[in-house]
Amino acid sequence: MDVEQRFDLIKRNTQEIITEDELKQLLEQKKNPKGYIGLATTGRIHIGYFIPMTKVEDFLKAGFKFTILLADIHAHLDDQKAPFDLLDHRVKYYKEIISAMISALGIDTSSLEFRRGSDFELEKNYTLDVYRLAALNTFERTKRAAAGVVRFGENPKLSGFIYPILQTLDEQYMDMDVQYGGIDQRKILAFARENLPRLGYKARVEVMTPMLPGLQGAKMSASEEKSKIDLLDSAEAVRSKIQNANCPIAVENNGVLAFLKYVIFVHKADSKESLRVKRTEKFGGDIGYESYEKLEEDYLAKKLHPMDLKNAVAEEVNRLLEPIRQKMKGKEELVRKAFP
Amino acid sequence: MDVEQRFDLIKRNTQEIITEDELKQLLEQKKNPKGYIGLATTGRIHIGYFIPMTKVEDFLKAGFKFTILLADIHAHLDDQKAPFDLLDHRVKYYKEIISAMISALGIDTSSLEFRRGSDFELEKNYTLDVYRLAALNTFERTKRAAAGVVRFGENPKLSGFIYPILQTLDEQYMDMDVQYGGIDQRKILAFARENLPRLGYKARVEVMTPMLPGLQGAKMSASEEKSKIDLLDSAEAVRSKIQNANCPIAVENNGVLAFLKYVIFVHKADSKESLRVKRTEKFGGDIGYESYEKLEEDYLAKKLHPMDLKNAVAEEVNRLLEPIRQKMKGKEELVRKAFP
Repeated sequence: MDVEQRFDLIKRNTQEIITEDELKQLLEQKKNPKGYIGLATTGRIHIGYFIPMTKVEDFLKAGFKFTILLADIHAHLDDQKAPFDLLDHRVKYYKEIISAMISALGIDTSSLEFRRGSDFELEKNYTLDVYRLAALNTFERTKRAAAGVVRFGENPKLSGFIYPILQTLDEQYMDMDVQYGGIDQRKILAFARENLPRLGYKARVEVMTPMLPGLQGAKMSASEEKSKIDLLDSAEAVRSKIQNANCPIAVENNGVLAFLKYVIFVHKADSKESLRVKRTEKFGGDIGYESYEKLEEDYLAKKLHPMDLKNAVAEEVNRLLEPIRQKMKGKEELVRKAFP
Repeated sequence: MDVEQRFDLIKRNTQEIITEDELKQLLEQKKNPKGYIGLATTGRIHIGYFIPMTKVEDFLKAGFKFTILLADIHAHLDDQKAPFDLLDHRVKYYKEIISAMISALGIDTSSLEFRRGSDFELEKNYTLDVYRLAALNTFERTKRAAAGVVRFGENPKLSGFIYPILQTLDEQYMDMDVQYGGIDQRKILAFARENLPRLGYKARVEVMTPMLPGLQGAKMSASEEKSKIDLLDSAEAVRSKIQNANCPIAVENNGVLAFLKYVIFVHKADSKESLRVKRTEKFGGDIGYESYEKLEEDYLAKKLHPMDLKNAVAEEVNRLLEPIRQKMKGKEELVRKAFP
């Protein structure tokens, strides 16, 4: 794969890269650059996580050594009701279930590793740099950086203001070339770009994918637990949730289309498969889609009925989840301890 | 010395103790409790520091093992313009010159030790507790705690909000029974009392002495550098500064009287000496004072002239400073590096 191809792979389905030039330069200089995504170990993992994991696969295919940071300290900074002994269990759960996800996607994991935040974020030099950045930035500045990610509520806890500082230093202390996150992280990533050079460290490349609607139509959030499809939901529950999903004749706020575009068709395209939608003869019979674009076109033109589309998506989701269910069998205790 | 005597010694010249009952209990339980004062290693040491050092002597006489914490991280949290390499030099300067001060006061130092903040404040468990307290407290709460001590300015830096949290944890991580500080620290010490139990640690006894006027009449502050008497000022400079000092016929805002009460007469009383004020025969001839109260009475009744009083004080101050000047000879480089 040449630099151009690797670049296109990283860029596909992203919303913004800061900066594209720096990313190109990096790919020219290094065959195996280092990238990571940080996941605060807060809630249960739902199928929305297939979207970033699909992007992680792009990084791996482009030659990256990739790290999934299980950010337990971030989780606590965002929610003091998650004590560290509980976070121990959550970290274990995250590692197990994300491994199962990745294996369900058929990702080659030889260049993938997990790290836990508290394993290096409590080192002396790291903490000294936390205090340095805290002394260089006004609390207004750190608040602005965190606002899109941290749940401040009416009486913001001090910890939320410290959150962007740790995310900044993670890039340096894990010796990363690239951080990947959702576009909701944009202000934190910009904060990192601005602040690392103030300590004499280099600014990193930031890659961001769009925030996508969940199956209920809104951005996936912890407050809509019920509408989310948990990775361990039964096949029956998956079918039922997808049947109840909001699936307007529109691209925006259509979580079913988003999942098709950002997950299912990425893998179909890479493995040169098509998506099969089953229909009775009365409604036109089975149809196969080779590209998301064609499917979207038909759907918006009402040539494809929501019910038929949902059935096809439910089947695809269950195909992804079945191996995860199998791998997590016998690990119910782990899940129970993580979410008592 | 019985418990009552030890208690009175700790209490003399203090403004508030939280709580007196807990202090009594402590003295009953332990012959050698542990106490400390934290000094942020910011500016040069002036004669105002004789006041807390005189109090430190009380703790030592009452059987305490006492620690002077050279709080370099606090210094940085309060002023990002003090980088850590500069703070290295400041810590050395503080240790040298405070040692010289203590020796000038004739204090038995066998139960006195110095510690440097960054030597233990960067330990993993300590930092984890910093994040715990940051997640338990709103930023408004930590701001209120810090407001009397941290120089927030118009655009408060985030670090100032973290400051009270470190001061809270110092009590626990140095395994102290008592923290001693100026009454300006009151809100931080109350924050510590409130927060240590939230982590399962015990609240400590807090001992506070009043804020006293400097020689210019106001509370000693870094902005009045010129009016302050540096420990390394020449005898001539000391005489001149004291001659120019504001010495109203009042107790309030009279830094000369304050120094007499809180430093000179404490030592005179303990060594059963009197203060000799030299006067020409014309103005009544020499006079000796056995107690501060008698001197204050005469001064407020205008039986003692400011000029004569100042002369006597200048002589006493120079008597204290002379051994410090001697001890610091040859260490000019140390001072220069600390304050370039």
